Amino acid sequence: MNKEQGEVETYPTAMAVSKRESISIFGGDLSQDFIGEVSFGAYAFMLIMLREPTPGELRLFEAVLVALADHGFTPTAIAARLTYLSAPDAIQGAIAAGLLGGGSRFLGVSEDTGRVLSEKLASLKSVPTDDAGWDEIASKMVADLKASKMTIPGLGHHLHKDGDPRVPKLFAIAKEVGTFGPHLALFQAMGRVAPAILEKNLPLNGAGCCGAALADLGIPQPLLRGVVLLARCAGLLGHIADEMRTPVAQSIFEHVESHAISSYPLD
Amino acid sequence: MNKEQGEVETYPTAMAVSKRESISIFGGDLSQDFIGEVSFGAYAFMLIMLREPTPGELRLFEAVLVALADHGFTPTAIAARLTYLSAPDAIQGAIAAGLLGGGSRFLGVSEDTGRVLSEKLASLKSVPTDDAGWDEIASKMVADLKASKMTIPGLGHHLHKDGDPRVPKLFAIAKEVGTFGPHLALFQAMGRVAPAILEKNLPLNGAGCCGAALADLGIPQPLLRGVVLLARCAGLLGHIADEMRTPVAQSIFEHVESHAISSYPLD
Amino acid sequence: MNKEQGEVETYPTAMAVSKRESISIFGGDLSQDFIGEVSFGAYAFMLIMLREPTPGELRLFEAVLVALADHGFTPTAIAARLTYLSAPDAIQGAIAAGLLGGGSRFLGVSEDTGRVLSEKLASLKSVPTDDAGWDEIASKMVADLKASKMTIPGLGHHLHKDGDPRVPKLFAIAKEVGTFGPHLALFQAMGRVAPAILEKNLPLNGAGCCGAALADLGIPQPLLRGVVLLARCAGLLGHIADEMRTPVAQSIFEHVESHAISSYPLD
Amino acid sequence: MNKEQGEVETYPTAMAVSKRESISIFGGDLSQDFIGEVSFGAYAFMLIMLREPTPGELRLFEAVLVALADHGFTPTAIAARLTYLSAPDAIQGAIAAGLLGGGSRFLGVSEDTGRVLSEKLASLKSVPTDDAGWDEIASKMVADLKASKMTIPGLGHHLHKDGDPRVPKLFAIAKEVGTFGPHLALFQAMGRVAPAILEKNLPLNGAGCCGAALADLGIPQPLLRGVVLLARCAGLLGHIADEMRTPVAQSIFEHVESHAISSYPLD
Repeated sequence: MNKEQGEVETYPTAMAVSKRESISIFGGDLSQDFIGEVSFGAYAFMLIMLREPTPGELRLFEAVLVALADHGFTPTAIAARLTYLSAPDAIQGAIAAGLLGGGSRFLGVSEDTGRVLSEKLASLKSVPTDDAGWDEIASKMVADLKASKMTIPGLGHHLHKDGDPRVPKLFAIAKEVGTFGPHLALFQAMGRVAPAILEKNLPLNGAGCCGAALADLGIPQPLLRGVVLLARCAGLLGHIADEMRTPVAQSIFEHVESHAISSYPLD
Repeated sequence: MNKEQGEVETYPTAMAVSKRESISIFGGDLSQDFIGEVSFGAYAFMLIMLREPTPGELRLFEAVLVALADHGFTPTAIAARLTYLSAPDAIQGAIAAGLLGGGSRFLGVSEDTGRVLSEKLASLKSVPTDDAGWDEIASKMVADLKASKMTIPGLGHHLHKDGDPRVPKLFAIAKEVGTFGPHLALFQAMGRVAPAILEKNLPLNGAGCCGAALADLGIPQPLLRGVVLLARCAGLLGHIADEMRTPVAQSIFEHVESHAISSYPLD
Repeated sequence: MNKEQGEVETYPTAMAVSKRESISIFGGDLSQDFIGEVSFGAYAFMLIMLREPTPGELRLFEAVLVALADHGFTPTAIAARLTYLSAPDAIQGAIAAGLLGGGSRFLGVSEDTGRVLSEKLASLKSVPTDDAGWDEIASKMVADLKASKMTIPGLGHHLHKDGDPRVPKLFAIAKEVGTFGPHLALFQAMGRVAPAILEKNLPLNGAGCCGAALADLGIPQPLLRGVVLLARCAGLLGHIADEMRTPVAQSIFEHVESHAISSYPLD
Repeated sequence: MNKEQGEVETYPTAMAVSKRESISIFGGDLSQDFIGEVSFGAYAFMLIMLREPTPGELRLFEAVLVALADHGFTPTAIAARLTYLSAPDAIQGAIAAGLLGGGSRFLGVSEDTGRVLSEKLASLKSVPTDDAGWDEIASKMVADLKASKMTIPGLGHHLHKDGDPRVPKLFAIAKEVGTFGPHLALFQAMGRVAPAILEKNLPLNGAGCCGAALADLGIPQPLLRGVVLLARCAGLLGHIADEMRTPVAQSIFEHVESHAISSYPLD
């Protein structure tokens, strides 16, 4: 698989290429065309998608980033604070530790929801034109997921049992800016039909809604989790700033240590 | 240090607090006041500073984030791509690996520059009112750093030997929006006086300029590195998207493996 | 899900519990019974399994750890070195970055092999008593995996195309110490039957053999990857020591940076 | 800094170099000379030091690794468990998160102690030959550190206020195997003289003792933290195994979340 002796190896990239005089990116010049000219959210969108967002796309993309940035004392935020407590000299470690919780259980919901919706949409011969049409497709999808005994991503929240307050706001923005596409339509329909099929009240959650919104923006499915991580990075930075001002990690550690009991030998 | 038996332990936080019906943050409501209402950059600023940025502050803050987001194939971007190659199923690991390079050698320049400038400013009895005044202070600072044989952060770039193109743009934005404060003034003066004192041409670099700009925005010194990490998180996401489209990590690995030679025993 | 007001919360653990006078673990005393009394490998085994290994089990367990510790310039070793280059002040970040490559592509082979073997063994009504019996089962397993178009873990190595030199040594040790169990027997049979079924020469690899050996030692399947990570941690430490003595990361970075070409816009 | 066009780039390494037929390391053959022939502890020592330990050195090295492996519910162990809770599909992330706490506050004690002792020893014209001689040097060192208002590493433990039980055991092993060198001698003397000088009872702690022991074994000062991380990697693996058997992370998360109170606006 190695290159032949003497063959010149090159590494293609669509990211920045720096020369002595300038830094080129996206067919433009970093300093002239981007610094101070586009928002950080717009630039992040470009880094992933290699094209500028429309104003409507940008509004929804930034809304999703804000919605996902922080949820208070999540396991990942606590892990970041405990890491900061142990290694205050290397805050990159605390941020990284927090992001490493970005797996299947908590931060993976956006990705899982996007995948389930995308797979269903890919199987459709035609896209519905009204709510009744979406409800029919969503009913089939939810019933199939129920039959397969899989968890249905995007449904339910351990605190917001009557509805996640972020969901209606995200729907409203997407409709307002004209980016309410098939993923959001199917997701919304899922919320309408799920309670009757599952025989319990599992409202749509914000993480799932963000996954549907990002999928409608064209973010590739394997990168949905990455966008969540970018949002969460800002939240973790907030938690570390908070920990610097008002430390709690030492108290959490002491609480756990002082309530430890030995479970050895196991029964 | 543990709480007395029976005493109620609480964990104060200025980050989001979720209730069944709502998510509160910064004295407002996440969905009503922030999602779709503020940019991601503005929200990140608030997460750190607990106050909204002015429009001028926001323009400079987002400019800095864009300036720092990506520099092409840096060691950290390569590390992230190699980690993605090894563990494509857990992109949080690839992002985290990239951020872990956020230490003293590369990403630490912004922080180090901010610290050196802040320390000098803290020692001043009065702030100069013209360039000549700043040059005098900068000359003393550069001469002292030279005498102490310390590396002077913010000076020099391995590629941009005639000047980092980001620096004049950041100065221009800060002046335009009215946030050109003492850190940027001292940093700019450092660029004017350093070549003569050091007897070599070491132009101001972008990372240092970003550190000075963030310090003028009031970002606490220990969090400067954190802002760099947030910016870099977007760049790493871009590199992983790039690696998915146009893989290079396998070729880098094969290049290194096929050019390995044993250095054992050491001479 | 939260505890009732006033209910005492406790956190059970089979790990160490420290008191003012002593540190208790595994029903013994850390200082009296373990420090200087057992090898690090034996203690690691106990931390996972909560029981002492027999001398034979320990010999195989340590052999596996040695076999997996280092493979030269793997993607993870290169990632660790690049991270050390960027952040030499926080070597925990370099080690962590290296471990984060412990995913499906490279370090996951041991885990995947262990899982495939365990699943097959769990489906057997009786265990064969001779090679012919194992060959029959392995033939069915390999044919099924081939039919399902899945990659068969434990087969093939990009360099050791005529056989991985670690495999016969690990078989020999397991037989010598009496821990050659059904996972290794099925794995060995897989090596005998695979070439004819797959119509190409894919010898057994060392990572897969280690997975089979660890499974025979009773290491739970979800922890196989963890044992690989422990082994690799020692290797990464070696690479960082090596990088301190004989740096190569800067050259790797410069090689990549100087061979970058822009692939934007994509064709 | 880049190589000239056409110049062959090579990457020297003292780690393993793999060929089609064999894996070479340390002038020997991995399979023949190391797998099953040396303990994991011995191999880890070689990966760092490029030479085999003597039996006495190995006994102390493994004792140190065992002493440092686990301390129950430390901040790093809790961070690893919370990360496992969030991302159970990527245990490399949980291990990495735990290691990232390997900074100045907790795991850094071994390194800091080693450095302080080494610096003092490097300044000596001759090495004392009896306890009285060591006490004199230690008294000067402690008094100087006290005068500089620096924390003295290796002294004090938040639980073991009457003495860390690991310390006498490590002293005894080092003396028994003949590796009780100047770092341990100076460390032991520090324990004798510190209470009178500091006017409070701060006994020697185990982490500091391990740092002194490793320094006597010749481990380079910048790698002391790395050895602690290797030891801790085994402990973190134990905590993840423990979390799989007897989960506590969800309860810790719920405890913190349910005891959160808003501290915004700050007073």
